[in-house]
Amino acid sequence: MLRNDSQQRFKLKRRETAMLIFIGLGLYDERDISVKGLDAIRAADLVYAEFYTSRLMGAALETLEAFYGRRVHLLSRKQVEVDPAWMEDARDKDVAFLVGGDAMVSTTHLDLRLRAARMGIRTRVIHSSSIVTAVSGLCGLQNYRFGRSTTIPFPYVSRGKRIIAQTPYEVLTENLDRNLHTMLFLDIQIDSTERYMTVNEGVSLLMEMEDISGGKRLDGALAIGIARAGSDGATVKADLLARLQGFDFGGPLHILIVPARLHFMEAQALAVLAGAPEDALKCVD
Amino acid sequence: MLRNDSQQRFKLKRRETAMLIFIGLGLYDERDISVKGLDAIRAADLVYAEFYTSRLMGAALETLEAFYGRRVHLLSRKQVEVDPAWMEDARDKDVAFLVGGDAMVSTTHLDLRLRAARMGIRTRVIHSSSIVTAVSGLCGLQNYRFGRSTTIPFPYVSRGKRIIAQTPYEVLTENLDRNLHTMLFLDIQIDSTERYMTVNEGVSLLMEMEDISGGKRLDGALAIGIARAGSDGATVKADLLARLQGFDFGGPLHILIVPARLHFMEAQALAVLAGAPEDALKCVD
Repeated sequence: MLRNDSQQRFKLKRRETAMLIFIGLGLYDERDISVKGLDAIRAADLVYAEFYTSRLMGAALETLEAFYGRRVHLLSRKQVEVDPAWMEDARDKDVAFLVGGDAMVSTTHLDLRLRAARMGIRTRVIHSSSIVTAVSGLCGLQNYRFGRSTTIPFPYVSRGKRIIAQTPYEVLTENLDRNLHTMLFLDIQIDSTERYMTVNEGVSLLMEMEDISGGKRLDGALAIGIARAGSDGATVKADLLARLQGFDFGGPLHILIVPARLHFMEAQALAVLAGAPEDALKCVD
Repeated sequence: MLRNDSQQRFKLKRRETAMLIFIGLGLYDERDISVKGLDAIRAADLVYAEFYTSRLMGAALETLEAFYGRRVHLLSRKQVEVDPAWMEDARDKDVAFLVGGDAMVSTTHLDLRLRAARMGIRTRVIHSSSIVTAVSGLCGLQNYRFGRSTTIPFPYVSRGKRIIAQTPYEVLTENLDRNLHTMLFLDIQIDSTERYMTVNEGVSLLMEMEDISGGKRLDGALAIGIARAGSDGATVKADLLARLQGFDFGGPLHILIVPARLHFMEAQALAVLAGAPEDALKCVD
């Protein structure tokens, strides 16, 4: 029923002109896509996806293909960033390009969209749920109180020396100075092997950054870890940062939040929705 | 097909326990909801909605009801904030509570969820697209470079004096000091009459705030107005703030963005995706 509907809707468009449609798949599994996005996939001539900037942990490629009733061509990083020859298809066909979360949040996708514009290819974006707003919903911190967000990258070794980026700690302390919450995205590496940073690793790295900087901002600080946002089995846990180091969040994806001073309702929400123990909630405004 | 599927899926749950399900409807019309959300509405025993904190401009209540195949009970502000007697239904039934955009971003919804917890009612959140991340996708500004967001409220008259909140201007200048973009939500009033603040009104109010503060931050500043995000007829326009005052964005909802200094790719994106004239893009990093 959906299928006929959507085909009719999109066929009309196709007569006018072909286009490249960026479609967000949402947070977790194949059912987090919007009805609009699903219609567009089913009506598209070709369906591509990239899952290295983000990915759906709750649905394998085969699950997606079965749900859409369409073959999905998975693109490598090289095919997206260096040699996107597949984009040529969008000159005379409707091409769907699928990404995890909301579409176009990543620089990589923006770069593709600008490239399409230079090639004279029309583009369209179909939005979906994103961890950026889901965080507020899951733990109760108010969305407007978040400052700039940042990503904790995996450390790497250069000339025998372990290199840790200090940026996440700097962004965090800047936000704390302004009494703003910080969302810390945790690194994803999907190349030869898949690595998803856990809340535990993120916390350890943050503490290492503080050691290096000589700061004391994390002593007694509250933090929130969230795992598998958007799934029925999401884990949301607030506690002292140091204590989260030992908490088992289960499988990926994880995200870490370090709040500023809490409003009353936020503190209440963290107790109810994130099991924050009383002794971790002392710094309420 | 969707319906049977979802009913089966949710009937299983219902045997365990009833719950209150917060469902985001997404950005613009009835097809922006997730497949998961649609399934949940169709399987719910009762469906409520509130459209005073946000609303879908692309679908009337009747359109939603026809699309879901369900009666939707529209709640007033009083029924949501003062006397939510309807919540009692969730003690032994699956109750869907619909809101525009992503669910649970508003304090009002958080308050309801905490109230449900105190009543011993289980809750669940089904996420959807939100203007917060759609903005990045539509105009190309990088999501992680946004500072705290703020809302420009309609001025009001108190004892014969016109009162304008200065907070939006203060948040904006704080963000500019840290070289961060600012998202300025524009007021919505849905009481006896409906009023949606336009980009033009928002710009005028910002300039009035600057006059009052004696600042000069908006002279020659770039800004972006977005109207009807998520629809096929979205308008995205970047220009000098002062020039946006005269630009026709068409119908609601509108949002205003004042960027910090632009990265090269952001400037390029604003030219391509938002028609920014060259003379407005001079302050590139």
